[in-house]
Amino acid sequence: MIGLTNYAGVMESLMNSAEEKQPSSPLTNSWAKKQESSKSQKPNGVGGFVLVHAGAGYHSESKAKEYKHVCKRACQRAVDQLKAGALAVEAVAAALVELEDSPFTNAGMGSNLNLSGEIECDASIMDGKSLHFGAVGALSGIRNPVMVANRLLSEAQKGKLSAGRIPPCFLVGRGAHDWAVSHGIPPCPSDKMATKFSLSAYKRNKRKMELAEKMDTGHNQTKKRRQSSENGNGSGCLDTVGAVVVDLEGNVAAAVSSGGLAMKHPGRVGQAAHYGCGCWAENACHMNSYSTAVSTSGCGEHLIRTMLARECSAAMQSEDAHQALLEAMQNKFISSPILASEDRVLGGVIVLRCCRCVEAQPSQNFQGILVEFLWSHTTESMCVGYMSAQDSKAKYHKVYRKSCATGDISINLHICQICSVHGALGWNVSLHAVLSWQCQ
Amino acid sequence: MIGLTNYAGVMESLMNSAEEKQPSSPLTNSWAKKQESSKSQKPNGVGGFVLVHAGAGYHSESKAKEYKHVCKRACQRAVDQLKAGALAVEAVAAALVELEDSPFTNAGMGSNLNLSGEIECDASIMDGKSLHFGAVGALSGIRNPVMVANRLLSEAQKGKLSAGRIPPCFLVGRGAHDWAVSHGIPPCPSDKMATKFSLSAYKRNKRKMELAEKMDTGHNQTKKRRQSSENGNGSGCLDTVGAVVVDLEGNVAAAVSSGGLAMKHPGRVGQAAHYGCGCWAENACHMNSYSTAVSTSGCGEHLIRTMLARECSAAMQSEDAHQALLEAMQNKFISSPILASEDRVLGGVIVLRCCRCVEAQPSQNFQGILVEFLWSHTTESMCVGYMSAQDSKAKYHKVYRKSCATGDISINLHICQICSVHGALGWNVSLHAVLSWQCQ
Repeated sequence: MIGLTNYAGVMESLMNSAEEKQPSSPLTNSWAKKQESSKSQKPNGVGGFVLVHAGAGYHSESKAKEYKHVCKRACQRAVDQLKAGALAVEAVAAALVELEDSPFTNAGMGSNLNLSGEIECDASIMDGKSLHFGAVGALSGIRNPVMVANRLLSEAQKGKLSAGRIPPCFLVGRGAHDWAVSHGIPPCPSDKMATKFSLSAYKRNKRKMELAEKMDTGHNQTKKRRQSSENGNGSGCLDTVGAVVVDLEGNVAAAVSSGGLAMKHPGRVGQAAHYGCGCWAENACHMNSYSTAVSTSGCGEHLIRTMLARECSAAMQSEDAHQALLEAMQNKFISSPILASEDRVLGGVIVLRCCRCVEAQPSQNFQGILVEFLWSHTTESMCVGYMSAQDSKAKYHKVYRKSCATGDISINLHICQICSVHGALGWNVSLHAVLSWQCQ
Repeated sequence: MIGLTNYAGVMESLMNSAEEKQPSSPLTNSWAKKQESSKSQKPNGVGGFVLVHAGAGYHSESKAKEYKHVCKRACQRAVDQLKAGALAVEAVAAALVELEDSPFTNAGMGSNLNLSGEIECDASIMDGKSLHFGAVGALSGIRNPVMVANRLLSEAQKGKLSAGRIPPCFLVGRGAHDWAVSHGIPPCPSDKMATKFSLSAYKRNKRKMELAEKMDTGHNQTKKRRQSSENGNGSGCLDTVGAVVVDLEGNVAAAVSSGGLAMKHPGRVGQAAHYGCGCWAENACHMNSYSTAVSTSGCGEHLIRTMLARECSAAMQSEDAHQALLEAMQNKFISSPILASEDRVLGGVIVLRCCRCVEAQPSQNFQGILVEFLWSHTTESMCVGYMSAQDSKAKYHKVYRKSCATGDISINLHICQICSVHGALGWNVSLHAVLSWQCQ
């Protein structure tokens, strides 16, 4: 139990938002109002919060409206679940289904195509209450990979299979597809999962690849690799999707889903299927004061090798969430010795932490869940949406990375910028907001 | 640089060995002799050490000789590589190939068959020098899965692919198979990978499963699950293989390979393919005094969810390696809140750590690599072999878990026993030995 006064100095602010550019966020007022109303109202049994992302990468202006709408719809889906009494893990799965169903995101329907022109998806989900985890990798022919991950999680919670066999937490490829179908999840013909967007991106990427390979002809392998690396990431867009949720009781859950890098080799599995890398959720316990939930996006190989989801979750046990995320992104990702040979370190995270709290003035009789949420990315842009069960509609932000010269470090409590030591990449912790609701 | 005197109090001992039961290990003398000779001899350019395991699980007495021979051969293969000047990562791969080729281990040739009667293998390798990692999951039709993992690692070290595409570190299923073949690794017909042992185990397991399912008929699902869980693990044997190596220069590497649980669902991927779970290797750096390498074995789902390889590696930065491993096994595995719902927590690790050291007496002019190695397991038995480049032959131990009553905790510096909080499982840190060689 942490006193609410710990948060007395926490303010909300928002910058770099494509949608709203005023220096002080409307959240500041709405949170203040909620604070006031929560003191005067009796517990109403409505609580919970969802934060979603539609990827850290490059988001085309031409699809800006679509990103906004799908993020808002995903938040609404999760909140509908929360209001109906669902646990965090059910609500986070519902948000992911909405994000996967959009043809504009790189997950489920409309995912990036691989080298062979096929869609292979990764997804995972973690329940902070049971600490169970389910994941699928390189899964084809299933519209909602997160549904399979979620079913793996719930089946594992039931205990062992016949003859004492341990249920799987991670299935890949054809086996994952067959397991899903045998558990009542309908197959979806692969050609129905590709969209005009993903098909045209595939043709564009293929031409780009063939051109790059032609240009390299006559050079030796080393030169070829070096030249190619200067072209940047061929995928163009890394818009994996994900969400983090806390329910009325303070249970947390996290999920992530991705079609993976465009033109990836068939069978390649990225961070979205990898334990500790794509998502993490952990309720508070005797060792941890805060419940934490994290979902990542970006270059799968970078996120796997740095286990960014788990690292950010662990960092969130520090008192200052903002500073902790800043340090985690700097020390465990951008400057990690594991990625020392990479020229660009590409990733983003959404983070939520919460704790049960009591008002410092016992006469005010406030006992509730206090939630902080924030995000950070090294990529060109990141799209996020969020909504509490007390909100009438979701909020959405498309945030851009500010560029800054190497060595120019500027940090303040709520909006942070720091330069990557690998190149001149700036990165932001874009929003740090706090909200609360009363326990039943 | 750590003074050799730090290790003055470290003794070697060995218990629970099927091969050698005397309380004081022959290593004690051989190490003392090496210490003496290293002071009088000039650097001879021979150094390096390998520790291998043929799994933590249940090892049949009828195959005792085979386990011994394959562990010794694997050590010899790695040492041959080290003597020829190979880096740790090459030597560890060579050891794994030998272990995979044995029809008596559950890796490569003779792996467990899955529910469909097919072999699907997982393997991974990590290079402590570059911190690169390669892994394959649910891979069929390749005799040596570790070779594919190793090739993924070395390809990733070359930099980006054409058009700036990021090379994969983890491939699964058919895609992994096709990538391997396109990179010159020959396919092996699946029916040639099954042996009479794996085929007869499959038939036995299938009968057992059918019987268990018949017995469950008429009961509801919950009862079925509960009854089944009392039958223990249906796989019988969890003998994943692995190795950890330090080379002449002090670089470390680790690898692991497994056919997975018997009767697993097709597409199931276990810890052997999972980053941070199956193996870990990390050279010393400005943050870490010790280079560490770890390889795990046991129930894949337990090892994934606790990230045991990375946890043990992190623990090895403490001064007392023995105590650190004991605490990591207790706190991060047996008593981990993540596995709180499991009735038996099954796993084992081999661990190596080393550092550059100087003799406390500068006149003696000793500069070398000092290596400590140890292992621990909660399973019935564990098979290990080890050899330094200065040894003429490898040593082998098959160690059994001592049973002890819950709550009965007995710890001493080198041989430790402690009870699991989940049932009455005892576990051992079976050997803690130290050796050294001089730097060139």
